[in-house]
Amino acid sequence: MRKKMVMVMILFLCMGISLFAQEVEYTAMDALDMVWLFLGAALVFVMQAGFAMVETGLTRAKNATNIVMKNLMDFCLGAIVYWAIGWGLMYGRDALGGLIGTSDFFKAPMDAGRESALFYRDWFFQVVFAATSATIVSGAMAERTQFKSYLIYTCFISALIYPISGHWIWGGGWLSKLGFHDFAGSTVVHSVGGWAALMGAWVLGPREGKYLKAPGGRVTVKAFPGHNIPLAMLGIFLLWFGWYGFNGASTLSGSDSGIARICVTTTLAASAGTIAALFTSWIWFKKPDASMSMNGALAGLVAITAPCAVVSPGAAVVIGLIGGILVVLAVEFIDKVLKIDDPVGASSVHLVCGIFGTLAVGIWGNGEGMAVGILHGGGFHQLGVQMLGVLSVGAWAAVTSLVLFLVLKAITGLRVSPKEEMMGLDITEHKAEAYTGFQIFSNM
Amino acid sequence: MRKKMVMVMILFLCMGISLFAQEVEYTAMDALDMVWLFLGAALVFVMQAGFAMVETGLTRAKNATNIVMKNLMDFCLGAIVYWAIGWGLMYGRDALGGLIGTSDFFKAPMDAGRESALFYRDWFFQVVFAATSATIVSGAMAERTQFKSYLIYTCFISALIYPISGHWIWGGGWLSKLGFHDFAGSTVVHSVGGWAALMGAWVLGPREGKYLKAPGGRVTVKAFPGHNIPLAMLGIFLLWFGWYGFNGASTLSGSDSGIARICVTTTLAASAGTIAALFTSWIWFKKPDASMSMNGALAGLVAITAPCAVVSPGAAVVIGLIGGILVVLAVEFIDKVLKIDDPVGASSVHLVCGIFGTLAVGIWGNGEGMAVGILHGGGFHQLGVQMLGVLSVGAWAAVTSLVLFLVLKAITGLRVSPKEEMMGLDITEHKAEAYTGFQIFSNM
Amino acid sequence: MRKKMVMVMILFLCMGISLFAQEVEYTAMDALDMVWLFLGAALVFVMQAGFAMVETGLTRAKNATNIVMKNLMDFCLGAIVYWAIGWGLMYGRDALGGLIGTSDFFKAPMDAGRESALFYRDWFFQVVFAATSATIVSGAMAERTQFKSYLIYTCFISALIYPISGHWIWGGGWLSKLGFHDFAGSTVVHSVGGWAALMGAWVLGPREGKYLKAPGGRVTVKAFPGHNIPLAMLGIFLLWFGWYGFNGASTLSGSDSGIARICVTTTLAASAGTIAALFTSWIWFKKPDASMSMNGALAGLVAITAPCAVVSPGAAVVIGLIGGILVVLAVEFIDKVLKIDDPVGASSVHLVCGIFGTLAVGIWGNGEGMAVGILHGGGFHQLGVQMLGVLSVGAWAAVTSLVLFLVLKAITGLRVSPKEEMMGLDITEHKAEAYTGFQIFSNM
Repeated sequence: MRKKMVMVMILFLCMGISLFAQEVEYTAMDALDMVWLFLGAALVFVMQAGFAMVETGLTRAKNATNIVMKNLMDFCLGAIVYWAIGWGLMYGRDALGGLIGTSDFFKAPMDAGRESALFYRDWFFQVVFAATSATIVSGAMAERTQFKSYLIYTCFISALIYPISGHWIWGGGWLSKLGFHDFAGSTVVHSVGGWAALMGAWVLGPREGKYLKAPGGRVTVKAFPGHNIPLAMLGIFLLWFGWYGFNGASTLSGSDSGIARICVTTTLAASAGTIAALFTSWIWFKKPDASMSMNGALAGLVAITAPCAVVSPGAAVVIGLIGGILVVLAVEFIDKVLKIDDPVGASSVHLVCGIFGTLAVGIWGNGEGMAVGILHGGGFHQLGVQMLGVLSVGAWAAVTSLVLFLVLKAITGLRVSPKEEMMGLDITEHKAEAYTGFQIFSNM
Repeated sequence: MRKKMVMVMILFLCMGISLFAQEVEYTAMDALDMVWLFLGAALVFVMQAGFAMVETGLTRAKNATNIVMKNLMDFCLGAIVYWAIGWGLMYGRDALGGLIGTSDFFKAPMDAGRESALFYRDWFFQVVFAATSATIVSGAMAERTQFKSYLIYTCFISALIYPISGHWIWGGGWLSKLGFHDFAGSTVVHSVGGWAALMGAWVLGPREGKYLKAPGGRVTVKAFPGHNIPLAMLGIFLLWFGWYGFNGASTLSGSDSGIARICVTTTLAASAGTIAALFTSWIWFKKPDASMSMNGALAGLVAITAPCAVVSPGAAVVIGLIGGILVVLAVEFIDKVLKIDDPVGASSVHLVCGIFGTLAVGIWGNGEGMAVGILHGGGFHQLGVQMLGVLSVGAWAAVTSLVLFLVLKAITGLRVSPKEEMMGLDITEHKAEAYTGFQIFSNM
Repeated sequence: MRKKMVMVMILFLCMGISLFAQEVEYTAMDALDMVWLFLGAALVFVMQAGFAMVETGLTRAKNATNIVMKNLMDFCLGAIVYWAIGWGLMYGRDALGGLIGTSDFFKAPMDAGRESALFYRDWFFQVVFAATSATIVSGAMAERTQFKSYLIYTCFISALIYPISGHWIWGGGWLSKLGFHDFAGSTVVHSVGGWAALMGAWVLGPREGKYLKAPGGRVTVKAFPGHNIPLAMLGIFLLWFGWYGFNGASTLSGSDSGIARICVTTTLAASAGTIAALFTSWIWFKKPDASMSMNGALAGLVAITAPCAVVSPGAAVVIGLIGGILVVLAVEFIDKVLKIDDPVGASSVHLVCGIFGTLAVGIWGNGEGMAVGILHGGGFHQLGVQMLGVLSVGAWAAVTSLVLFLVLKAITGLRVSPKEEMMGLDITEHKAEAYTGFQIFSNM
């Protein structure tokens, strides 16, 4: 206790040198922020492992290598192009009235000054968010996409699509000036990835055998159960773990006392989302469904991502519950009504709940002087701004990714042949099975 | 950004002022503690993934989905009820002379002050401990428990059983006033979960075919080997990783220099426990057994949890070695002598080693002015207090969980039918296999 | 480094407290360093899980339990002997002119002073590095090594081989005095482990059926594909995650602003390594190979480990690309030309890329006043020193591990019988299958 007091006095004295010095010298608070953002970014990196395990677990064994390879490569290619191009478009000098950044491509300062250190720190924290957005798509396009086409797609989302709408919101662009609030990226990250996922799945078309037309014209929808539920569950836990970095470290400062509430709202919304999806599936399908419950956890997490810093724990529970119900309805709607084949429900989780979470700010938001929603006397202003953001980012992401996939389809075909699909992409694309030695029924 | 500037200015103004200010303003030391406890809690959260992988890996493939679903749901339900009820019983205003907390249910302060931030921080750190206690039970009750009954059970342990005895020790209750020392929860967390695990396995009865009576009356004990040892081993590594947060961050402060010794004693005890269990199994069963070695790691970790801050590295090695031997003996005793079927050895690990670790404080304890054990001249006082804690918490947890399981058995039946058990709970409870496409022999 | 000095000087000037007082009191900066190194070490610990998953995933199902058991036991035995002996040899009082440390065996201070806390902190951070070096070997010796011989080997590397060359570089020994720069251990950790891996695989001989001699004398090289690619990929992500602690926390201080650049160079080199290995395998073998790509990620990580703090992001990309190409060539060379059977490519990853990364410091190094390479006007001096380090540490590690394995071979046989190898080590060494209930073709 005495030691702690000595320490506090030393810190106080140190802090008192002058505010001017603070801005040019790397201070103790900078050091704390560095540790915080570094470890937060490492947690977000773990989400790559989480996505890989969820996506491979919820699809078929014959495509398991292919999916994890896509998850690996979208990070690797994304990191390089986000350094070369993406960062500059997102955080470079603003141009065209808040539409785009235009500097800092291939940025690589070699001095040891504070400015350079903060750039590297911020780049590392941002690249893992860009990679999250990119990797969402692999699940929706699983089990039938050419590997080379996927590699081309992923360069475009990380270099262009994600950074430009990101600039509007986090890079000081036009939406941020209007007061659009997306704390950790329900829109910036998740719905951008979700739109690309939906467009990709739509342009690709469904997996062979997914929608079977009977002679009378009636369509039977076949379910392809995942091949490894424990691995998928591991992925959910890893994603949830990483999400604490995703939401928590989005304070961008280790000395922001708001970190505490964020981790509570994140925990409660994820829990409520899981519970809601479990019971919705239990009532609807008469069984407590595993993949729906897992998507419910993600639904709660995606929904709380935008409002996590400005809502109460009670509101977080409500937001999670709605997210969990919504994801079950969305999976059924996209699968059975739209007849778009999204094997892991990526668009339901990231797009639908990303939109809902963004709007939730305008309803339950209770921040001090910002992001005040309807239920806390803020009127419809914030909700209106949130809707504008949802629509404009949605239009940008949907149109650009649609064009990208249509161009890829015209040039490369985008999709493997029916025979290759039947054999499984592990053999046809990578010439190696995922589970050598195991007896597998590949027709499953 | 604005918050940071405000903080720096506050620090500047407070320079040379009394420490009184420290108590009302959020200081730099608060920020360090926040980062520390937040990341520590995230590490403890990873233990959920660890338990899920260990439990599913050490049981049969036909119940793999069921087990990971229980592990997911006990966290989710536990988090909600611990926010609603559990926290208030554990850390609320003391009543009945240290028996129970009675305030702060559904606590949700909306101001941005220091007090609120510390509450949220502490709640997040505590909820992951509550969830650890709850999830221990799923392994002991694996492969034969109704899913719905498990969901009911888990609400009770997180809302009532765990928080009340937790109040006695960590909430300022009667045991803490007597000087009971349980640094990170050998008793608070592990033996409470371990008692519930043992009672649950006992009330449920053994899995079908576990104890076969031959005509002469002799009972043959069948072993059901786990279906995925690499996954179980992954779970062990994840648990060990998370345990660094469990023990290390239980300093509750990032500026406590004792963190350093804690991570060393934790590492050495876990290592010694693994080695002891390996060689015990090697000598006894003539093979270096994988599941025993894995349980040995957990045994060392559980045993060092109470004394990690007050023992020397050498004592940690001894405590780990004893824990590792003890867990092998306990598994055999519970399985072969008591004939209670605990599929993963949860009660041996968490109850037996939890008790041992709690008593170890009274033997090897060497803290400054507190928790001094027999071997360091403290006499039998500390050991006596530790025994009192073990007995009273044991009585509370054993009786309440026994009553809970007996009531559940009377109302819901608690257990699935023999036919459902034979088919596997993945199909009967969740209507989906864990490993679709793989050839599995479900009679194994 | 300079920034940190400035900060420390400001602390001294502002406080008016003597240097003496700083050294006896545990300061706020100590607290930040503790949190940083503790969490960094926990991240490095996760690499144990990563290695276990990669090694088991890339080998056959019939040896899966055996491999993960080796990965568990080498950490446990290594931790105990590194506490007993290794630390003292590496960081004890220097003797014989920088050749060896000679104090601090079984070190266990029981006071609560700053010195003791820093020792415990440093030991915890170092033990996970020692364990990384040791565990590299299990992959190269997979599928044919006696379990008991492996346990003996691992005690020697952690107690003697690793600490002595470690003393030369990180313990203040002769190489450090010459200016040898190995920031996070391309040589200290990876190439020492890599040499032991290569010697072990060589002394053991290839797996049964690996090199088949046709009547004409022509040798056919058989590939044994890994049995669980998703699990191996999970291991890669966990290793990469842990590497942020490995490289980042090797600053040894949370207030070093260089942390930021390190995480960027680490990310870019790993990404570039993966991409390079993917395309090298795609061009050479006509397929985007999964195991090569995974090894490419590790190649980039190993190569950037030495120079991560002193190179630019652009240089990191180049180093990663070369590492990724190099690992594919090395795997082919060791497998097809040297005909040494290294089942997971451990020697290619850790030895070849460890050497390359060490030399890279002398080429691309651009540190302030230290580690300046050829491309930045440093001439050949640094490269010469790096080469001397590579050669001397290589000679030490190769000769001692060769002698160790030859002695073990003479005493225990080192290797299991051909029949045991055919049946799989899970059954013969541990009397339990890894995947009970699954239909497995063990001849694969």
